[in-house]
Amino acid sequence: MSLVDSVKFDDRGLVSVIAQDSKTDRVLMLAYMNRETLLETLDTGRMVYWSRSRKKRWLKGETSGHFQTVKDFYIDCDGDALLFKVDQIGGACHEGYYSCFFRKRNNNEWQITENKIQD
Amino acid sequence: MSLVDSVKFDDRGLVSVIAQDSKTDRVLMLAYMNRETLLETLDTGRMVYWSRSRKKRWLKGETSGHFQTVKDFYIDCDGDALLFKVDQIGGACHEGYYSCFFRKRNNNEWQITENKIQD
Repeated sequence: MSLVDSVKFDDRGLVSVIAQDSKTDRVLMLAYMNRETLLETLDTGRMVYWSRSRKKRWLKGETSGHFQTVKDFYIDCDGDALLFKVDQIGGACHEGYYSCFFRKRNNNEWQITENKIQD
Repeated sequence: MSLVDSVKFDDRGLVSVIAQDSKTDRVLMLAYMNRETLLETLDTGRMVYWSRSRKKRWLKGETSGHFQTVKDFYIDCDGDALLFKVDQIGGACHEGYYSCFFRKRNNNEWQITENKIQD
């Protein structure tokens, strides 16, 4: 697929991927894909990442049911970062929040900005 | 600063940073900071990155005048990705676009979604 040929994977074979909520434009998470999981994402319309910690394919929602459906797909000027607008089922964060970015600086402390949507 | 102690820098000493427009919530760019440029960013309120290609500190806007002023600062659940909401002067992209993510998938091709704001 020619689209994927524009992507510059790093020396680990990975590219950084931002998932953004298609309805609210909230940034949900930052993760990684390799060529195979990017192709699977584009083929199936569901976000499939590469887990650096577990060193394996990671279909988002496979265990939690919190799948992400692809709506739009962007690439940056250098080809080394991807942005997907997605429909998020449930929450993106394994800690139970809608977004992984649920902590915000308030003075010199982290403040949790929202309630968990599930335990 | 205790906030920065929450950040997990990778084996290169870097952390991924998403810059998002504070007014429109558009994602502008993805770049990297090391501990020093993160501290400088928090101290000055202007986004200072680490350029992986040039291997040096990179004050965004230093040559273009297109500075980014920090509005809000978020950290993700794992502490290895940061999200800054910023006020963007001019455009974020060195190619003249407001966002570095100016190319969007349209069928099986990249489509430029906007006009340049400067040459």
